[in-house]
Amino acid sequence: MFYEKVAVIGVGLIGGSFALALKGARRCGHVAGVGRSAANMKVAMERGIVDVVEDMASAVSNADLVLMATPVAQFSAVMQAVGKALKPAAARRGLGGKIAQFVPAHPIAGAEKSGAAAASAELFRQKRVVLTPLPENPPESLEKISAAWGACGARVSRMTPEEHDSVFAAVSHLPHLLAYALVSDISARADAAQLFGYAAGGFRDFTRIASSEPEMWRDICMANRDRLLNELHLYEAKLKTIGSLLETRDAPALEKRFAEARAVREKWLNGSWLNGEHE
Amino acid sequence: MFYEKVAVIGVGLIGGSFALALKGARRCGHVAGVGRSAANMKVAMERGIVDVVEDMASAVSNADLVLMATPVAQFSAVMQAVGKALKPAAARRGLGGKIAQFVPAHPIAGAEKSGAAAASAELFRQKRVVLTPLPENPPESLEKISAAWGACGARVSRMTPEEHDSVFAAVSHLPHLLAYALVSDISARADAAQLFGYAAGGFRDFTRIASSEPEMWRDICMANRDRLLNELHLYEAKLKTIGSLLETRDAPALEKRFAEARAVREKWLNGSWLNGEHE
Repeated sequence: MFYEKVAVIGVGLIGGSFALALKGARRCGHVAGVGRSAANMKVAMERGIVDVVEDMASAVSNADLVLMATPVAQFSAVMQAVGKALKPAAARRGLGGKIAQFVPAHPIAGAEKSGAAAASAELFRQKRVVLTPLPENPPESLEKISAAWGACGARVSRMTPEEHDSVFAAVSHLPHLLAYALVSDISARADAAQLFGYAAGGFRDFTRIASSEPEMWRDICMANRDRLLNELHLYEAKLKTIGSLLETRDAPALEKRFAEARAVREKWLNGSWLNGEHE
Repeated sequence: MFYEKVAVIGVGLIGGSFALALKGARRCGHVAGVGRSAANMKVAMERGIVDVVEDMASAVSNADLVLMATPVAQFSAVMQAVGKALKPAAARRGLGGKIAQFVPAHPIAGAEKSGAAAASAELFRQKRVVLTPLPENPPESLEKISAAWGACGARVSRMTPEEHDSVFAAVSHLPHLLAYALVSDISARADAAQLFGYAAGGFRDFTRIASSEPEMWRDICMANRDRLLNELHLYEAKLKTIGSLLETRDAPALEKRFAEARAVREKWLNGSWLNGEHE
């Protein structure tokens, strides 16, 4: 598929990388960008991520494809504005109204850096993109969106929204919370400077996701609050178990847990887990 | 300083890297290796990490420098064997017996891979090595050991053993426990395969230290049990606080924590924290 005009609402790491990847794959004519920050849009223009900066109505009204890549909390306002301005031809394709054209997608790719400056055409290569279709989405909308992400080099799969939120509460949202909590824990100490002075590579990697966007992660935590709380409580129970092994000096049980965790992680890294794709 | 014969007890990641680094810096004549695993010692010979494989008594008896780099749990047995065989000339230097020659050192460097195969001459470059001297250590022993680690490219500093154990309980031992706990938590689920199927880069880095040696981490956790339990309880309290922000949907407070954690982490990465060195 070829998209003559692509509108990108929110030209940050994700939106900017999507634009660069589509351009790199020669799948689009030009990209119109919409954004809050003039400084960021300047970077997006300078880097050739977008060809023109427009207001929402102009960008969206005659676009063949609109990517909404703003923080989650702005989705409702952005959708309202986009809805008003969608291309009539495209809108007609939707059976039950414009919502039929909106296909929720979660690219499983990121970096601790944000903004157009961090965008890269390679960000999605070999990464997963999970579509969580709405009941209203017609097959042609899903194919169109799958094709666009496929052109960015991504491996596209599908889940229900509920399944998606459960999976990511466990493997993404919880670890973010844990990493933020550790940095927060250490930095509140009187001897924080000494502690950080001896923190090394293990600490750096463990806390890498604590350098993620606070605004975005606030929104994600709030949007998935119930499942995240559930995950947090499961994890707290696990810590209690491990704590009691320490209390009772049960070295063999502790080693067994460590060995099992390492074995599972190696299996995961080697790709010998079933991959859980739903296609 | 030049060490004609260096004995390395335990030719794994640390011991092997130390040997390679000293050789690379042309600070030693030859290296004798002592180890439990014939397969690993074969690798150590093949890679030129050690020049000869000896039993404990032969390796140590005429060595100018002995590196004990075995798992912590074997230290007491190894020290007994080493003590019996130490070079008499070297032993005389110690005022209060052979313990004066033993300088505890903690290289803050590692990798999730272990064994002689993973050893690298570069492992300690620009990394910290913390000496935790015993009251019995004479200045010349400390200088000798500092010089050897310095020759490996390390930044050598000193702490009391108590200070050392507190610092590393917080910035190293706790994160290891947390990472093992997360992998353990996820892998126990009925839908573990699907969960791992969508775990991505953030999860990978967060759990990297869960691929560390189970035996070594069992020993470390046991050796530093009280301080680690204390850290675990502080962290659990922090999780309770963050959980209650989620419970009460206090989005601004959550964002504030996230933003503070990110800011502190960036400050740490940029090196703008005081470095806590005690020299």
